[in-house]
Amino acid sequence: MEKTLSHESIIPLYFQLKEILLETIESGTWLPGDMIPSEIQLQQEYSISRNTVKKALEELVQEGMLNRIQGKGTFVSAPKIEQPLTSFYSFSKIMKSRGLEPKDIIIGLKKNEARMGVSKKLQLTDNKQVYELQRLRCSGDEPIILETSYIPSHIFPNLSETMIEKNSLYDVMQIEYGIYVTKAKEVFEPVLIRSHESMLLQVREGNPALLLERIAYDNHGLPVEFCRSLIRGDRCRFYTELL
Amino acid sequence: MEKTLSHESIIPLYFQLKEILLETIESGTWLPGDMIPSEIQLQQEYSISRNTVKKALEELVQEGMLNRIQGKGTFVSAPKIEQPLTSFYSFSKIMKSRGLEPKDIIIGLKKNEARMGVSKKLQLTDNKQVYELQRLRCSGDEPIILETSYIPSHIFPNLSETMIEKNSLYDVMQIEYGIYVTKAKEVFEPVLIRSHESMLLQVREGNPALLLERIAYDNHGLPVEFCRSLIRGDRCRFYTELL
Repeated sequence: MEKTLSHESIIPLYFQLKEILLETIESGTWLPGDMIPSEIQLQQEYSISRNTVKKALEELVQEGMLNRIQGKGTFVSAPKIEQPLTSFYSFSKIMKSRGLEPKDIIIGLKKNEARMGVSKKLQLTDNKQVYELQRLRCSGDEPIILETSYIPSHIFPNLSETMIEKNSLYDVMQIEYGIYVTKAKEVFEPVLIRSHESMLLQVREGNPALLLERIAYDNHGLPVEFCRSLIRGDRCRFYTELL
Repeated sequence: MEKTLSHESIIPLYFQLKEILLETIESGTWLPGDMIPSEIQLQQEYSISRNTVKKALEELVQEGMLNRIQGKGTFVSAPKIEQPLTSFYSFSKIMKSRGLEPKDIIIGLKKNEARMGVSKKLQLTDNKQVYELQRLRCSGDEPIILETSYIPSHIFPNLSETMIEKNSLYDVMQIEYGIYVTKAKEVFEPVLIRSHESMLLQVREGNPALLLERIAYDNHGLPVEFCRSLIRGDRCRFYTELL
């Protein structure tokens, strides 16, 4: 590598090193699974302090670009899953289009009285009940999204795990109940992964994630699902193309 | 308040409390600047442990919904700035449409040789130079976005702070150089705010943020700007409406 760091730049040195390492990954010079040079090698190559190298590597690990294997070294991670934000979000479709195998793990399906926040999102009156469906959406065996759906039980009576295991939730709504989801409002926020979520998603607490909240509407404009998806930031990024 | 927490739910109690507090804010029952009940009051009202209350409040503070004033209490924050992700992102336009006053602080404008990552994004050959423009984009006096733009200097010779102080960057490109930005590719990722960024954005290190990377193209499809915007997650959220 013949890239050098600029001491003139507004950008901190460690961040410049991060950029160079990222570029080396993105250009395909280093491939997923490749071991990268040691801290000492990087320190010498770029004439910077060990702490500068450490900081760059730590952030790249946290951001999911590199992973460390104790006693072995630091390796290039599998590429992040690129997801479009311009079309209706479907995890299983995105995964399949990327040649990845989507797998859902149902954590629980329970019928409860709708809590305040949920009730308002679904425009429910009085003490209506909702199904609370929690799923872990995986790429192969790797958990990517922790998703909690709230579904009004008076619209979808007798919803069962068996139905959801066989078909996507929106397919179940259509096939079993004749309800078509035709519109959605989505709100995105960057958040931190919390302790109970970190166990399920198998990432460290405090790691970055995208929280996607969706209200899905049927063809009459009636809300039929409120859904909170917590998407691992170290495994996904999102894109749009704007005109 | 007559809302209760469900011990049956898959959702942790502290998180249910968070939802109730959020709902109380979103419904306008509590207004920005209002002091919320004390930890002891909340503990008694919902018959939960002090730690459960603490955890809910801490996360709401970190997420920017509440703020604590030492020795005074916990208060409802100003609402997050809602930003559409479906149209071309313009900070100043969004701010004005929300009745907020956009203000830019130029941190620096320097001409440097383009570093690797930047050079590739802008499709630059040999050792082309770029202007590196770093700005703090504020709502009134509150910093919201830390933005670094990289602009090829052979396309925009003699770019100066004076030009950018008077007009938006894209207006400068158009007025001074006759170049029209007509297309952009944007990539989003949830990230953590790092120490050098936290000082400029006046938030705590490790807080959630959205990193927006944009490549802007002129009407001939030539990249004319690469821009990294770090947007405070505690002050902004993003929405799309999908059909």
